[in-house]
This record gives sequence, structure tokens and C-alpha cells, in this order.
Amino acid sequence: ITGYKLFHHQHPFEMKYNKARLPELQVAYETWGKLNETKSNAVMIQAGLSASSHAKSHRENLRPGWWEKFVGPGCAVDTDEFFVICPNNLGSCYGTTGPSSVNPLTGKQYATTFPLTSIDDMVQANFLLLDELGIDKLHACVGSSLGGMLSLMAAAEFPERVGRIISISSCAQSHPSSIAMRYLQRKTIMSDPNWNKGHYYDGPYPKMGMKLAREIATMTYRSGPEWDQRFSRERIDPGGPNTLCPTFTIESYLEYQGESFSTKYDPNSLLYISKAMDLFDMGEGYSSLQEGLSRVKCPVMVIGVQTDILFPIWQQRTLAELLQKSGNLGVTFYELNSLYGHDTFLLDINGVGAAVKGYLEIGRQFYQHP
Amino acid sequence: ITGYKLFHHQHPFEMKYNKARLPELQVAYETWGKLNETKSNAVMIQAGLSASSHAKSHRENLRPGWWEKFVGPGCAVDTDEFFVICPNNLGSCYGTTGPSSVNPLTGKQYATTFPLTSIDDMVQANFLLLDELGIDKLHACVGSSLGGMLSLMAAAEFPERVGRIISISSCAQSHPSSIAMRYLQRKTIMSDPNWNKGHYYDGPYPKMGMKLAREIATMTYRSGPEWDQRFSRERIDPGGPNTLCPTFTIESYLEYQGESFSTKYDPNSLLYISKAMDLFDMGEGYSSLQEGLSRVKCPVMVIGVQTDILFPIWQQRTLAELLQKSGNLGVTFYELNSLYGHDTFLLDINGVGAAVKGYLEIGRQFYQHP
Repeated sequence: ITGYKLFHHQHPFEMKYNKARLPELQVAYETWGKLNETKSNAVMIQAGLSASSHAKSHRENLRPGWWEKFVGPGCAVDTDEFFVICPNNLGSCYGTTGPSSVNPLTGKQYATTFPLTSIDDMVQANFLLLDELGIDKLHACVGSSLGGMLSLMAAAEFPERVGRIISISSCAQSHPSSIAMRYLQRKTIMSDPNWNKGHYYDGPYPKMGMKLAREIATMTYRSGPEWDQRFSRERIDPGGPNTLCPTFTIESYLEYQGESFSTKYDPNSLLYISKAMDLFDMGEGYSSLQEGLSRVKCPVMVIGVQTDILFPIWQQRTLAELLQKSGNLGVTFYELNSLYGHDTFLLDINGVGAAVKGYLEIGRQFYQHP
Repeated sequence: ITGYKLFHHQHPFEMKYNKARLPELQVAYETWGKLNETKSNAVMIQAGLSASSHAKSHRENLRPGWWEKFVGPGCAVDTDEFFVICPNNLGSCYGTTGPSSVNPLTGKQYATTFPLTSIDDMVQANFLLLDELGIDKLHACVGSSLGGMLSLMAAAEFPERVGRIISISSCAQSHPSSIAMRYLQRKTIMSDPNWNKGHYYDGPYPKMGMKLAREIATMTYRSGPEWDQRFSRERIDPGGPNTLCPTFTIESYLEYQGESFSTKYDPNSLLYISKAMDLFDMGEGYSSLQEGLSRVKCPVMVIGVQTDILFPIWQQRTLAELLQKSGNLGVTFYELNSLYGHDTFLLDINGVGAAVKGYLEIGRQFYQHP
């Protein structure tokens, strides 16, 4: 991981839970395009669970980013129009402070002494970065999955600083079935003896747990209809079956996904961010979810996917409905029939991409171009 | 496990795959009600993955059976009308020959030297038992989940010996997404170092793998809407959250399910039967699924549940449609809106139970009562 910029916040950072504080904070981020004179054309891309700040390739890092085709000149997030910022989330392992960072007070990696992290904390860190960049108000926040949660929370916590938001495949509060699916991933990691209560940085790596966790996650990221089309009942070895080992290509696909991800991401980061997603609830501290959502005053686009099993479509219908009921007159809801389940936001340029582009650029005549 | 009868088939038993044969076979079974003089009132209940022959309590085993409320005098499967037989499936660990049985040729438990098992093998074993009991033709087969696969295969393989079948929450061939979910359960078991390639009978038990596997399975057995109603976002400790440990009651529910099941069932049995379900395909050896299903000549009731994520409702619509297209004029399809997902067949007396009762008893005037 290279090619990102670092913002050093050399002050204590207060966390939401357990009165915890970090002695200091670093935020890794990348930017594309130019900030205009009035500083009014900034768009923040808020990343998903395991994504880095590298949404798009650039001179300092030529590797394709996780939203490569969605960001760029003329793209859904048009870098000719907008100054695009993508921060790495608090708790991650790609430059921003997280469990694998060194605690300056002890000189050792935090591991599981890292404080329990929340969506609110991640948003606070993002806005400290915006302060540093001198950006008072964002044109828009765009986020998918965890990123969508962050966009909603950003609009709620900083209503004067967010012009509009796009929440893709997200929700207003985590549902027990998605908590269950994330819990299982955490459990497989924490059941790996090498996890060692999080203190594995100087010992053997909990690879088995990470592999299994990613295989479970992969199941929740795609959809049955896609797998039917892509794998059907195709066999690895047409001669088989001979043993209990994998027979079908869907099995080797899952194995491959687990294997290739298992060493790319820090297991403790996964635990902390996954837990933060479970705890996400826009109604927390309010008498109802609707009241909590009434903090979101800016225009909102909600995009949901019918084949998503992690953030089911009805959750996103609910999000859009409650935003409307809370008095928000600027709610747009798109329901996509993509086959790609939760991962649609990574793949569907024509569906998700077109919606994002349209929503970001409607009214662009009001902006000063750089 | 006690109170079942044992049928000893003291001859070699040919298996479907790899030209394997078992030197002998035992089938555990239980019966309720009386066989009439013409031996025409027998109903076979075909059990699910981890179920024993104990569908219903009786004098030799007073503990409630897995279908306790569905079987009995006046119940869905009426023991005043029918002679009810429930065999334990081949590959299981509750009396019928399986991986934990002793191989008479070696004097040791088979473990993973047990041959790969198929749905066809299980049906063959069931019908050897019927031969032993002198039952030429069943009034009906009733099966849920794996049991529904067995019912379909029974009607296909023994068209003259099955009067009608009821297939509940089953399918015509396993879908890649259900293969994926079962593969993950097998993988967690096989990743437990104590699994020891299946040879754990004299060593430490692969409990961690079994627990995780059952937690994954539990996720596929119920439904999001049920969990929303039952657990919502209720917390274990209202004061929390403090740590990465479980915060929500849905998490402790999954833990409990994993813990309580983990030592009740033989891990190798789970591997073999789970694999057999993956391999299930009524179209195997035929030019199409429809042609394979055309072997099912008897009347069929197909029952599906809209909230089932393991055997999605559209799979069961497909099963019913293909049976009809294949020329079967006796197809009845019920689509239930139960909240209980795949486990509906264990819980829904008024929905599943009523359908089963009606379908078994329609035309009962043609039968001799005992």
C-alpha cells in the first residue's frame, strides 16, 4: 500500500464508546481532480469495510482502485468537475489509525487494546481531514455499504457541511440477519488459535480464520441468481465426485476468494469495523428511527439492489420511506434489479454509475469549475 | 439414542459412486400405528440431514421426536390411519450404517474410509427395509429438506412402490448457493485441526468446527423477518457495548445453537450427508431436469416457503412446474408465507401440517383400516 497522503492530527481523538480516546490520529487519503476557488466542488467517497483510500489509480499508485471505473474524467464521479477525496476509514489498516497502528503511549501495536470503534468516530475523523484541507462544505458524500452508513451519519452530524448524499446498498440501522452474518465472520477469526486474542502481530497469522471469514462474507456479497448463471452445477473435475473435497466450481470460487483476501487485510481491522457496522443505528439516542433520520436535511439518493442479501432491498425501501416521513423533501430512491447482489456497487457502471453521475451533476451550473 | 429397531442386511450393499460397496448394512427405524391386512396403509417419513428415526415419542423412547406434533392419533400424519415408518438415513450416526460405524472388514470405525454417499443410496437402503417389513407399496412418502429429495428419488426409482409423495422445502437439484452454504459448513469442520482428516474417534473432538458449522447452518435455517420480530436489535447487556464480544441477542442465539448441537451429531456424518445433498440432481443421467423428473409418475404435493433462503421458493416453483411439464397430472403446489424460513416444516402445524394431513387422507376411503 503506497501513494496515499497522510494527515497527522496530533491531538487526542475522543471516541464514542467507553469514554475512550486515541492519543493522536492519522488519516490516509487520496484525491483526484482540482478544488475550485470557492472550494465548493469537493465530493467525498466513503469506503466500504475492507477498502483503502485507493478508489482510483493515479501517478503515485498506478494499480487500479476499488472504484476504478466509477471515478475519473467523464466518469460517474467526474474528476473534471469535482475534487474527489477518499479517506481510509478509522480502524482500517491502510494508513489510517487502527488496531495494527503503533500506540505512541506504549510503542507497541494496539491490537485489541484499540478502543471499540463506531460509525460516528469514522465520520469525525473524515471531517477533521476536511478541516485540514480547508473544505467547509462538501458538494456531496457518496458511499456504498459501510460507506453508505458513513454518508448518512455525515449528513446527520454535519448538516451544514454536506450538500447532498448518495447511499448505495446501505441501511438506516443494521438488521439482526446482517449482524448474524458479520458475527459469524468475527467468530471464525476469533476461533483461530493464531488469533491469540488479537496479539498475533509478532506470531503466526490467523490465516485459517481469515480465509473462512472471507468465504462466509463472499456468500453474502453476491447472489444466488448470479451464481446460477455463472457456475450453475459445473464441476471442477467432470469425472468426479470421488471424495468429500470440493466437487463444484462454486466451491473453488469461494476457496479462491478466501485465499486471496486472507492476507490482504488485517484481521483485527476486520473485527473492529465489522462490529462498528453491527452497532450502526441512526435511531440511537432518539425516540425512533424516523426521528434519528430527521437529522438528515440534505437531498438524499438511496440506491438498493433487489438481489442483495446482506442489505436486503426492503431495508433500503424503509430507509427511503423513513427519510421522506421525517420531512425530507429531497429523497430519490432507485431500486436496481442487478444480479450482482451486494457487490453491485463495485460492478454496475450503467446502473449505479449512471445514478451517481446524474445525482452529483444535477444543478452543476451552480458550481465554479476549477 | 435408544428405542429404535434395527434391520440387519447381511449382504454387500452397492453404492452409487466409485463402485463402492459396504460389506453389510444396518438400518435403524421406528414405527407408529398398525399395518393393515392388505399392507396398504404404510407412510414413510423421510428425515432431514441431522434427524434420527425418532420422529415421535413412543414407549421405548419417551423423548419428544423431531416431528412430535406432526405425527400421532389425529395428527397431520395420523397414526390411527397409517402405519408410519421413519428410517434413519444411510450415512447418519443414529443406528444406521455411517462413518462412525465399525467396518466389519477392519474392526475399526469407517471414518473417512466410508464411501461417498448419495441420495440414491439412502433410498435404496430405505427400500431394503420395506422389503424386510413386507411392504410392497407405500401409501405415501413424506419428506422435508433432504427428506423431500429422498421422496422425489423414491418415486423416481420405485414408481410402482410409492402411491404419492409430499416434498416440503426441497428441490429438484441443489442450487450453487445452497452448495456454497453447505460447503462452508464442511470447510469449517475440516479446518478444525481436531478433525484430523476424519480420524478423531480416538482423539480430541472437532468441537470448534462443529460449533461454527452449526452457527452457519442456523443462519440458513431461519429468516431475517423472523429474527427481526424475535430479536430485533435487542442487546445482551443494555449497558454495552464494551468489547468485540457479542453485543446483540441474535449473536448469543447463534452461539447457543452451535454449542448445543456440536456434540449431538457426528461431524463425519454431517460431511457425508451434506455432500450427498450437494450432489442431488434429479436430472443426472438424463438429457434435462424435466426428463429426469418425468420418472415421478405418482401424485406429488410440493410445499415451499417464501422466507426459505436455503431452498428458495423459486426453486420449488420450478420443481412443481417441471413436474407438470413432464406430464405429471397430479401436481399440487402450496406456497407458504411462514416467517420461519427453511425450518417451517418443523414448526408450522397449521400450514405444513394441514397440507400434509389433507394430502395423505384424500381418498382414504379406498384403504383398509387396521
